[in-house]
Amino acid sequence: MEHADADSTTSARSGRPTTGLWLIGARGSVATTAVLGLAALAGGHAAPTGCVTARDDVAALPGHAALPDFDGIVVGGHDVSHHPLPKRAEALADARMIPAHLVTLTRDALEAADAEVRPGHDPARPEGSGQAVAERLAADIVAFRERHGLERVVVVDVASTEPLPEPAPEHDDPGLLLAALADPDRAPLPASSLYGYAAILAGAPYAAFTPSASVALPALARLAAERGVPVAGQDGKTGQTWLRTVLAPAFAARNLRVLSWAGANLLGGGDGATLADPDAVGSKLSSKSRGLRALTGTATTPLHIDNVPDLGEVKVAWDHVHAEGFLGSRLTLQTTWSAYDSVLAAPLVLDLTRLLALADAAGLAGPVPELGFFFKDPWGSDVHDAAAQDRALVDWLRDTAAKVRATDGARGGAAHEAAR
Amino acid sequence: MEHADADSTTSARSGRPTTGLWLIGARGSVATTAVLGLAALAGGHAAPTGCVTARDDVAALPGHAALPDFDGIVVGGHDVSHHPLPKRAEALADARMIPAHLVTLTRDALEAADAEVRPGHDPARPEGSGQAVAERLAADIVAFRERHGLERVVVVDVASTEPLPEPAPEHDDPGLLLAALADPDRAPLPASSLYGYAAILAGAPYAAFTPSASVALPALARLAAERGVPVAGQDGKTGQTWLRTVLAPAFAARNLRVLSWAGANLLGGGDGATLADPDAVGSKLSSKSRGLRALTGTATTPLHIDNVPDLGEVKVAWDHVHAEGFLGSRLTLQTTWSAYDSVLAAPLVLDLTRLLALADAAGLAGPVPELGFFFKDPWGSDVHDAAAQDRALVDWLRDTAAKVRATDGARGGAAHEAAR
Amino acid sequence: MEHADADSTTSARSGRPTTGLWLIGARGSVATTAVLGLAALAGGHAAPTGCVTARDDVAALPGHAALPDFDGIVVGGHDVSHHPLPKRAEALADARMIPAHLVTLTRDALEAADAEVRPGHDPARPEGSGQAVAERLAADIVAFRERHGLERVVVVDVASTEPLPEPAPEHDDPGLLLAALADPDRAPLPASSLYGYAAILAGAPYAAFTPSASVALPALARLAAERGVPVAGQDGKTGQTWLRTVLAPAFAARNLRVLSWAGANLLGGGDGATLADPDAVGSKLSSKSRGLRALTGTATTPLHIDNVPDLGEVKVAWDHVHAEGFLGSRLTLQTTWSAYDSVLAAPLVLDLTRLLALADAAGLAGPVPELGFFFKDPWGSDVHDAAAQDRALVDWLRDTAAKVRATDGARGGAAHEAAR
Amino acid sequence: MEHADADSTTSARSGRPTTGLWLIGARGSVATTAVLGLAALAGGHAAPTGCVTARDDVAALPGHAALPDFDGIVVGGHDVSHHPLPKRAEALADARMIPAHLVTLTRDALEAADAEVRPGHDPARPEGSGQAVAERLAADIVAFRERHGLERVVVVDVASTEPLPEPAPEHDDPGLLLAALADPDRAPLPASSLYGYAAILAGAPYAAFTPSASVALPALARLAAERGVPVAGQDGKTGQTWLRTVLAPAFAARNLRVLSWAGANLLGGGDGATLADPDAVGSKLSSKSRGLRALTGTATTPLHIDNVPDLGEVKVAWDHVHAEGFLGSRLTLQTTWSAYDSVLAAPLVLDLTRLLALADAAGLAGPVPELGFFFKDPWGSDVHDAAAQDRALVDWLRDTAAKVRATDGARGGAAHEAAR
Ligand SMILES: NC(=O)c1ccc[n+]([C@@H]2O[C@H](COP(=O)([O-])OP(=O)(O)OC[C@H]3O[C@@H](n4cnc5c(N)ncnc54)[C@H](O)[C@@H]3O)[C@@H](O)[C@H]2O)c1
Ligand SMILES: NC(=O)c1ccc[n+]([C@@H]2O[C@H](COP(=O)([O-])OP(=O)(O)OC[C@H]3O[C@@H](n4cnc5c(N)ncnc54)[C@H](O)[C@@H]3O)[C@@H](O)[C@H]2O)c1
Ligand SMILES: NC(=O)c1ccc[n+]([C@@H]2O[C@H](COP(=O)([O-])OP(=O)(O)OC[C@H]3O[C@@H](n4cnc5c(N)ncnc54)[C@H](O)[C@@H]3O)[C@@H](O)[C@H]2O)c1
Ligand SMILES: NC(=O)c1ccc[n+]([C@@H]2O[C@H](COP(=O)([O-])OP(=O)(O)OC[C@H]3O[C@@H](n4cnc5c(N)ncnc54)[C@H](O)[C@@H]3O)[C@@H](O)[C@H]2O)c1
Ligand code: NA
Ligand code: NA
Repeated sequence: MEHADADSTTSARSGRPTTGLWLIGARGSVATTAVLGLAALAGGHAAPTGCVTARDDVAALPGHAALPDFDGIVVGGHDVSHHPLPKRAEALADARMIPAHLVTLTRDALEAADAEVRPGHDPARPEGSGQAVAERLAADIVAFRERHGLERVVVVDVASTEPLPEPAPEHDDPGLLLAALADPDRAPLPASSLYGYAAILAGAPYAAFTPSASVALPALARLAAERGVPVAGQDGKTGQTWLRTVLAPAFAARNLRVLSWAGANLLGGGDGATLADPDAVGSKLSSKSRGLRALTGTATTPLHIDNVPDLGEVKVAWDHVHAEGFLGSRLTLQTTWSAYDSVLAAPLVLDLTRLLALADAAGLAGPVPELGFFFKDPWGSDVHDAAAQDRALVDWLRDTAAKVRATDGARGGAAHEAAR
Repeated sequence: MEHADADSTTSARSGRPTTGLWLIGARGSVATTAVLGLAALAGGHAAPTGCVTARDDVAALPGHAALPDFDGIVVGGHDVSHHPLPKRAEALADARMIPAHLVTLTRDALEAADAEVRPGHDPARPEGSGQAVAERLAADIVAFRERHGLERVVVVDVASTEPLPEPAPEHDDPGLLLAALADPDRAPLPASSLYGYAAILAGAPYAAFTPSASVALPALARLAAERGVPVAGQDGKTGQTWLRTVLAPAFAARNLRVLSWAGANLLGGGDGATLADPDAVGSKLSSKSRGLRALTGTATTPLHIDNVPDLGEVKVAWDHVHAEGFLGSRLTLQTTWSAYDSVLAAPLVLDLTRLLALADAAGLAGPVPELGFFFKDPWGSDVHDAAAQDRALVDWLRDTAAKVRATDGARGGAAHEAAR
Repeated sequence: MEHADADSTTSARSGRPTTGLWLIGARGSVATTAVLGLAALAGGHAAPTGCVTARDDVAALPGHAALPDFDGIVVGGHDVSHHPLPKRAEALADARMIPAHLVTLTRDALEAADAEVRPGHDPARPEGSGQAVAERLAADIVAFRERHGLERVVVVDVASTEPLPEPAPEHDDPGLLLAALADPDRAPLPASSLYGYAAILAGAPYAAFTPSASVALPALARLAAERGVPVAGQDGKTGQTWLRTVLAPAFAARNLRVLSWAGANLLGGGDGATLADPDAVGSKLSSKSRGLRALTGTATTPLHIDNVPDLGEVKVAWDHVHAEGFLGSRLTLQTTWSAYDSVLAAPLVLDLTRLLALADAAGLAGPVPELGFFFKDPWGSDVHDAAAQDRALVDWLRDTAAKVRATDGARGGAAHEAAR
Repeated sequence: MEHADADSTTSARSGRPTTGLWLIGARGSVATTAVLGLAALAGGHAAPTGCVTARDDVAALPGHAALPDFDGIVVGGHDVSHHPLPKRAEALADARMIPAHLVTLTRDALEAADAEVRPGHDPARPEGSGQAVAERLAADIVAFRERHGLERVVVVDVASTEPLPEPAPEHDDPGLLLAALADPDRAPLPASSLYGYAAILAGAPYAAFTPSASVALPALARLAAERGVPVAGQDGKTGQTWLRTVLAPAFAARNLRVLSWAGANLLGGGDGATLADPDAVGSKLSSKSRGLRALTGTATTPLHIDNVPDLGEVKVAWDHVHAEGFLGSRLTLQTTWSAYDSVLAAPLVLDLTRLLALADAAGLAGPVPELGFFFKDPWGSDVHDAAAQDRALVDWLRDTAAKVRATDGARGGAAHEAAR
């Protein structure tokens, strides 16, 4: 194997072997922001504001060093778009989301990442059996790992939201699924699930930042568990839904009864255009409401997402909460949230990369429920309360890091010996 | 001692001896709502929505029965107003805060409570030395306890907010304070502190629902601890400040940096009129900002309270949060909260009554930090995060109730023996 | 003809002959509020707040006395519901929309109006040819006029919003329409249009307060004009749309370019339940957006109406306006409107009654464009700017009243002679 | 007289002699934006969005050509700051208010304007008698006019808001004032009024865009009228106040009774820092409330302005309107306005330049009430209703332009003759 030089495979700060981040939808808005942000962090041009794993209290955890350093993460990915990542970054600066000088400062890294983007799978263009497609995608991931001598590659899906597939028996049964995948005349899986399956084939930890089916299909979740691949999902909880899972438990703690929770969402950008499609928006709306209903016990949670192109990368969300208090009295809370969506998502993508690398180092397999903090629809967990998820996350990180360091220590001693 | 008949001194449901609730400001809006609400709960005319101690998960705690039942709480208090409590209740119904039929259903209880209101201490009308005043007030509390054969009386201050007193050496030193109190030519304590001192003299657990000085003065806090009286405060955290202590930790959990948190408050009612006085509002504003500054680390927290009489009992609060996210991006959150203020406060007054009765039964003395959930400016605690306060409260309730029931069990056995 | 006594046919204040108000949907929320309000005004129990024709500057117009007095208006109507109007009034008081004592004070009037409600036409229950139905409905109106010796009856449609009918050639051609109406096997008109046609048959001025088809169909509008019946519509402009037609012209006056205007609507009550039906809501949404698009020139005006039953009679509307200013800068305006919907509508229903009575007295026929102030989708006018509509209304009222009084003067002289 | 070449003294488009704009506070945020914007308009780099005089309907007025063209306006001014205008423009681009490329494109014009800035009068640094100061300032204006061969110079005050001066007899009596001005030991006028007096001395039409005293003092207003100088003021109505004067008349038109109108203002930038001073803010607050009280009839209009430096050039304003409707019902409207303040103001400064040039050409003297559209506190007018002001403005512009063109026509003929 021809592989990259030593410098690119270890973190400058820690000297530990590097981790890969493989983005599905690598030329999209979230992906571009993550790549640019990672380069800015590595280059010392930006502070890790918005990164949960860089919080003071988290950084102070004893095992924090078990997480890969930002400067030791190498990026590649799949996309069906040919619009270069550096151009996308410029557009994000023009949209006033990120400062223009950061695009200049990180141009090399953006170009390097763009050079690592491989053609994705476009469901509109058949490529043979599902198995063949997934193997092709997996091979791209493996080649990336080998080319850069990476210890592991974390796959994060930040591609456009897909319509949910029609239910089918193959989705529940790994045996049926594998059979259907082998058949070139059938297409049992949507693109997101083919990517998820490819990650499993490549032995790469995987996070679903979108509401698409991906490895939420039981057959794939089972496969991930069986093949020792940790997975986490689903649908990044970054703005309005996050806020709701902060506020709803607080109403409950005060024993105030939520009667209705209505909302509106306005967004432009690529995601706005995608979600203008009623099919695509369906999966998003259902994943946004599930947690809220669980937390409040009310079913009156009307919600809409509107494509408002002139807002560009900004997302505006309005919520109206109507609740009952003591003696039948009524109260209302309204919130208006306005933020550049992708800068909320990107640091969490970096967090998930670090945390799934840790999960993989710890030998976890299948859904990691303690990563529920990051998702609207947490796999393996019924907890939606953001504060409770935060505690669970910190506890898990502390314990898992301790475990990894214990193992590393043992191994490290041996490695040290061997190195002599 | 001539005392009330057995029916009035035990809870119908539990048969346990009853608890008294003595309200300072007993004819005010919060007090009237608490009295009416207690009667509605006892009579089965209302659900305990808004009562934290009636939450499903709290009611399911093993030791929950150690709390006094709602139907075993008898009410009295001090006020300087002669406007009868039932009239005040009618006005609150006219203001659409509470349903008119509940006033009808609870009229007897409102009249009974009004009959238990004793003349308060009006600082504008000198009554002799501070010691004499406090003893007179304490005697009222003791007489109430004896008249109704109550096991204990919890005092809750819901009187009008006072201006903060000028700092003085007596406030820090119990010895100096007692000397000054004895001097008829000096008035070392504002009214709220005289009430607090009276509660200590009467051995009655005490809660400060207002931002007035009360037993926040170190000399009085020390006295409470020395004389075995549990106290809790200060300034009920019911609306905007509660919301802020829910949201601010959530920003921190996401590692988003709050740059400014500006707010406006509009309120009518008695509290609105009082807070139109710039002196009185000072204590309120400072207790509202302290927690927010601690939670966010920013000092840009401008806040105003305006008296808007046409709003009646409604309080409207607007907040504008400006924060920095990843790569220097900016986001905003606005909240508008609109609620009848006193119905938010009243169930918490009932919670505090139950919880301080428990604290007293458990033999606690001085500030109870775990009751910080209820207050803008928690005594004995630096924790402002509402979710963290909730956990601390539930843990404390579970442990303290267990302790009390263990003691009760022991005592109960003995009592049973004695009763034979 | 046996008819009512003199007292009921003249206004106590003015001694002028009375006007009838015939409400389609007479037992609904808007209708009940209008009936109760009229009685409260006539009885001196309420001020005419919210009535445009009672504004100080309007009342000061020289010809104002040409409008019928509130105390000279007699009410009846059609409805398919049997739920009595007084019961509905009680429910509106329970929902805190109107004070309970007003229901008591106006009970007689509510009962009197309820006794004048005749069975409406339920499209789900065929009653023979359209012509037969309309004649039956017209006869009810004529009988009401005669029974009370009224000078004229104004019909106002405040029934539930209907789905819009499929386009058909009969809707455009009076000849085809009359033929189809005569055919018992065809149903060329939806209920709202049958009511409109009945008003024309009865020679009764007609206002369409709903977005239903009614006499907006060209064939009916033509008939109204030909038969000398003044009509006005359509869809009462009471809340969010009114606000938009106030604000949008103001942006234009500043030469600020609106890029998008997005909105959300939450409502409970009867109207909320009706509009939960996607077919019914269609007509509403299109009539809400038309004016806004005309005023701003943007097509990005997403809007939703959600049924939120717990809000009861309250309607909450949120708008988010995104505009471009000087040098490409961006600005936003958000509005949140919260109001009891029917109390906004009811005074305008009374205004329309007075103004259409005037139009009729002046001999106008067909759509009256100057009444566009009251409607989302003004008939005969392209003006949506609320301030411009207000000026047009006041000018029209002044001029038309002057004309009527001139005629009255002439006639009055003659009548005076005759009376001798 | 040495004067500039022909090119700089006529508009390229119209060939008409040019107009000067002399800005007091020429290096501030509003001034810089106006200068940059003017250059961008003249250079065809921006559309006149936000300029009232460039509205389609205004541009279509027959006499519109009587207004000076944007490309024929030359800029200079006074300031006490030495921070160069181009640097200020860069800062405004960094604050994301204006696009960075416009700063590059207009750099020459920014530098040219900066070269025309003369030292202002700093009240903290005495310069001799008021008369001497004003004459020095007037000489700067006259020299500018002559240097560029300008037909006239319009002075616009966009300097920092001053505290209002103590009332004094000189402010009301021109005779007393002139005497006091001559006395080197007295300082009867604040800086803004000295600038206003200087404009009068220079015969330059003058607009007060700030709430400072300026020529609002009756003695100066009288002098302006006597000396034939048209003046307009005061305090630019650009954001929240504008919105209020749009909305309040709309409530009145619906006969809805405003009970209270409360507001909050958050702003950073230079103006935010200035208004953090309670003295300076006083004049602003009173000019913001006056119109609102007149329009609504309520005195409950609490308002605050807070300096929130992290908001930079953005101003956020929240309003809460509480109104009474039919039958005592209550409704609320909330608005949140968020905009870059100076880009709202700058195009209006350009409008005022054009309109005062016209007023001067028409020979008007003293306050021009029809320019009230632009001001919170309109001189010579009680009209605050924005729609009514708009009509008055358009009518005035049409009539005045016609008058000027009639005269010009006459003169033009003569001039033409003379030029032969
Ligand atoms: N705060 C957030 O931004 C946030 C939160 C939660 C979820 N998400 C989800 O993240 C995803 C990305 O959002 P975005 O704003 O970056 O969207 P985007 O439209 O800017 O980017 C999506 C990218 O996916 C690519 N893509 C589409 N189909 C593909 C395929 N079959 N294979 C590979 N690539 C494909 C597109 O070419 C594009 O480059 C969306 O699904 C969105 O719903 C975002
Ligand atoms: N959500 C809430 O309502 C809330 C939250 C936190 C704190 N508080 C505090 O609770 C207190 C009560 O609020 P409210 O709305 O009931 O006010 P209120 O004005 O309706 O009632 C205050 C009562 O205190 C009485 N009083 C005044 N001075 C007294 C004295 N010296 N001795 C005895 N009584 C006296 C008054 O006569 C009145 O009856 C206020 O201090 C308020 O700041 C309320
Ligand atoms: N601010 C406002 O309230 C407002 C503004 C604009 C338009 N509107 C329109 O006014 C109408 C009435 O609103 P509401 O809140 O009173 O609704 P509602 O549901 O309370 O009342 C509607 C009434 O119409 C009756 N009805 C239904 N079908 C009928 C038929 N075929 N014939 C006769 N009566 C029939 C119903 O029985 C009911 O009594 C709605 O169409 C609404 O869209 C209201
Ligand atoms: N939308 C708006 O921006 C708006 C609306 C209404 C009124 N105004 C008023 O416009 C004025 C300017 O606002 P800004 O944002 O440009 O403020 P700014 O602080 O950016 O600029 C003010 C300028 O005035 C200069 N200045 C101060 N004292 C001076 C003096 N004695 N002589 C000459 N120059 C002096 C300062 O040096 C500075 O350059 C303020 O008074 C503001 O209240 C602005
Ligand atoms: Na504390
Ligand atoms: Na029309």
